[in-house]
Amino acid sequence: MPCRRAFLTAIASTLVFEPLVRARQGSTTPGEVIADLVAGNRILAIENVLDAMGHISVRHPSRPDRFLLARSMPPEVVTAADILELDFGGNPVDGSGRASYLERFIHSEIYKARRDVNAIVHCHTPSLIPFADSDVPLRAMYHMAAFIADGVPVFDIRQAAGMTDLLVRDAKLGKALAASLGNKSVALMRHHGAVVVATSIPNVVGRSVYLDLNARVQIQTAALGGKATYVDPAEAKLRMADPNEYARAWELWKRKVAR
Amino acid sequence: MPCRRAFLTAIASTLVFEPLVRARQGSTTPGEVIADLVAGNRILAIENVLDAMGHISVRHPSRPDRFLLARSMPPEVVTAADILELDFGGNPVDGSGRASYLERFIHSEIYKARRDVNAIVHCHTPSLIPFADSDVPLRAMYHMAAFIADGVPVFDIRQAAGMTDLLVRDAKLGKALAASLGNKSVALMRHHGAVVVATSIPNVVGRSVYLDLNARVQIQTAALGGKATYVDPAEAKLRMADPNEYARAWELWKRKVAR
Amino acid sequence: MPCRRAFLTAIASTLVFEPLVRARQGSTTPGEVIADLVAGNRILAIENVLDAMGHISVRHPSRPDRFLLARSMPPEVVTAADILELDFGGNPVDGSGRASYLERFIHSEIYKARRDVNAIVHCHTPSLIPFADSDVPLRAMYHMAAFIADGVPVFDIRQAAGMTDLLVRDAKLGKALAASLGNKSVALMRHHGAVVVATSIPNVVGRSVYLDLNARVQIQTAALGGKATYVDPAEAKLRMADPNEYARAWELWKRKVAR
Amino acid sequence: MPCRRAFLTAIASTLVFEPLVRARQGSTTPGEVIADLVAGNRILAIENVLDAMGHISVRHPSRPDRFLLARSMPPEVVTAADILELDFGGNPVDGSGRASYLERFIHSEIYKARRDVNAIVHCHTPSLIPFADSDVPLRAMYHMAAFIADGVPVFDIRQAAGMTDLLVRDAKLGKALAASLGNKSVALMRHHGAVVVATSIPNVVGRSVYLDLNARVQIQTAALGGKATYVDPAEAKLRMADPNEYARAWELWKRKVAR
Repeated sequence: MPCRRAFLTAIASTLVFEPLVRARQGSTTPGEVIADLVAGNRILAIENVLDAMGHISVRHPSRPDRFLLARSMPPEVVTAADILELDFGGNPVDGSGRASYLERFIHSEIYKARRDVNAIVHCHTPSLIPFADSDVPLRAMYHMAAFIADGVPVFDIRQAAGMTDLLVRDAKLGKALAASLGNKSVALMRHHGAVVVATSIPNVVGRSVYLDLNARVQIQTAALGGKATYVDPAEAKLRMADPNEYARAWELWKRKVAR
Repeated sequence: MPCRRAFLTAIASTLVFEPLVRARQGSTTPGEVIADLVAGNRILAIENVLDAMGHISVRHPSRPDRFLLARSMPPEVVTAADILELDFGGNPVDGSGRASYLERFIHSEIYKARRDVNAIVHCHTPSLIPFADSDVPLRAMYHMAAFIADGVPVFDIRQAAGMTDLLVRDAKLGKALAASLGNKSVALMRHHGAVVVATSIPNVVGRSVYLDLNARVQIQTAALGGKATYVDPAEAKLRMADPNEYARAWELWKRKVAR
Repeated sequence: MPCRRAFLTAIASTLVFEPLVRARQGSTTPGEVIADLVAGNRILAIENVLDAMGHISVRHPSRPDRFLLARSMPPEVVTAADILELDFGGNPVDGSGRASYLERFIHSEIYKARRDVNAIVHCHTPSLIPFADSDVPLRAMYHMAAFIADGVPVFDIRQAAGMTDLLVRDAKLGKALAASLGNKSVALMRHHGAVVVATSIPNVVGRSVYLDLNARVQIQTAALGGKATYVDPAEAKLRMADPNEYARAWELWKRKVAR
Repeated sequence: MPCRRAFLTAIASTLVFEPLVRARQGSTTPGEVIADLVAGNRILAIENVLDAMGHISVRHPSRPDRFLLARSMPPEVVTAADILELDFGGNPVDGSGRASYLERFIHSEIYKARRDVNAIVHCHTPSLIPFADSDVPLRAMYHMAAFIADGVPVFDIRQAAGMTDLLVRDAKLGKALAASLGNKSVALMRHHGAVVVATSIPNVVGRSVYLDLNARVQIQTAALGGKATYVDPAEAKLRMADPNEYARAWELWKRKVAR
């Protein structure tokens, strides 16, 4: 509780930044950012993007060198009281001693490297692993996944650190992952999963859900045989001119997790 | 509310057409047409034909140059109060300023071109995309999908308009789609989804559900290997002599969404 | 109501046959046969073997030349009051005028031809269509589907009657299907579905559920590639020595539909 | 009831072993071992690893020559009162005459052969059968299934006993299965299913759930085409240094079955 109050006080003192936050996050008050992060956790669980593992974060609305992430727990049962504020060293700033996820460096290093990114999902979604483990590139099959039309890199942790337990356990590994991601929206992680980035919580949730659907579609297309085509990068660019692409889905998903 | 009342008044004044409506729509009163459209929205959502996106419309029961379509919102949560009446320009006639879907021109142009069509579904059902994106034609695998035995065209928006955001944003694109559909029951939309048409709401819902199942079956048949056969167009024609093919399913689905 | 009372009276008058019924059906009273048939309808719906279409019947416990089948309606919502008693002409004997399924001749003709059969399912389960539509034979992948190790014939209605609407609309077509089934447990119906037979309701329900699972397994095995093996007919024969193979599943399923 | 009381008395008399139990099982009291076993049964059912068939056991916390297993019933509905204590002959020790599963020898013989194993699952999970029935080895696709990176043997009952009904009906067959398993974490059983072993109930449940997911991923990877890679055994070894790999999932699953 004290940590949460401290956090709320901290952002309350920066209300002057609110209009910016609103534009960037699709949320209008600090409490709404947290509410959206809690909703994002639950939505990703009920949509089967995350199971007991994986996480979603949001850049701090007024302190761009911090981010919000749940303490180490299953996303499906996260509440507002479970949200921690972390600095770019991956350390919770509330002093309560509660630990966030082991792989929090995925988030800190990407926020450092990508000023345009305000929300990040790390997942093990089964449909993505075939692309992480093989030489078949993940492609944009339809307009709902236009954000990957410019390519999906695959991060191979062995190239950064040799033999590991496959987890992004420190800042060095997080930095290597961020480098692999580059300026793209998604990076696959070989024998592990993926990371998805976007400008807001609704967008990163929408991208994660449709990335899963798109991967299933691509696998089914391969199973069907025949010669496939993919969304043209020029079409994808026009499609992505809409900054609130997943707004309608977001409203529905929020209703579902509010039940 | 006023718009809804206006609409009800409008159709109330045309009660003389009711017997025709009954035969064509499977509904017996104007209120029932709206109730069926609401049910159709929800059924398509629980049957996973639609998610937060996509839409279903019905031709106005007494004014064949108008159609009914929800305002822009997720189909799963549409209620009778959300139904708008639109003219063939794609404009709501109630003056309330509420907007329908961006892609309403899919509906207006098909109703213009096809006098036999009274109900239309536009969807992004994942099972259909492999056929929209490849050179493998969608075929009728069993009697429940006999309506596609005469072929399923694929609409490629690039041939109509070059590079776009893939959406049917205006009447010109809607007209090109309607031309691609021709006299068929389904048109696939490359890198996007599909449009399904029928004589009534129960039929278009039934066709959409079984189109999805049929596509899954065809993909599984390809994965199984071997040499496949398809429903003969002559068998399909005999099968389609039943104008209420999906009546039993419709009654069950309505019970489910009424819970 | 009167028809149901008449039926109950009819079987009440044959209580002398009850021990036989008990052994054969796994049910101990006439009311239990009906209760099991209702449960079977609902179980097949929740297990996705049937949707709004398809049906399950049981041979009359004391009049082997009659059978019990629901009136024409979705299996998921069948109640005891919906069960009709039919003769081998496919006619309800209660005189109430209520109609059973169009394809009731599937049941009447198989009961006529197969004295060992006491329960029949007709279904359109999607996993079975790839085998009905191609030259890949459905094989027993594991012990739960041992009953198909002696082969699964495919009934092609065109060989019996040329071009049709694919439905088994009369006794002649039902007889042709029964001939195709021969002494086997399952016959696939090209471009349509399947028929499954067994000695009792629990067994025909169990077989139908595991036939679906087995078909999915075989398709996945094909997708995996490699060289597959199948349950040896000699192993299957030993396995089928258990006359109550699905008893444990049946108890669980009944609990589920009783909720 | 008397049997349950006898059992509780039996373990109550061995409370001195509790610290050991705690370390090994992740449970802190005898009652918690039983509660975890009940939870494990239900979790495996809701996660679709088990259906009405299959079972999970735990080595007795204080008598390593005994194990706990439900009486013969569907896992989904097991309660604490259904748990039996069995000796290594496969006999319940309570004298109540209640029978456990026919295939209890799977458990007794593996506990005999493997001192490191404290929990065992036997399942027919459909995703595993393609690997049990073909020459394609099951491989570790991602870190969540690192425990199979050292290989998955396939037990062929015909090599032990010629033609059978495929069931592990006696100690001899159980011993042959245990020999096939060797020092591995999983053995597939041709035309039947699999056995999964671990140091604790949470771990064997976690392994069973992710074994299913991993098998699906491998099948999808094969369907996708291309050249696949697998978790390196050295990476897997580092990954498995965590003895509580599935702790977070276990907490979530327990919450779900407690509802």
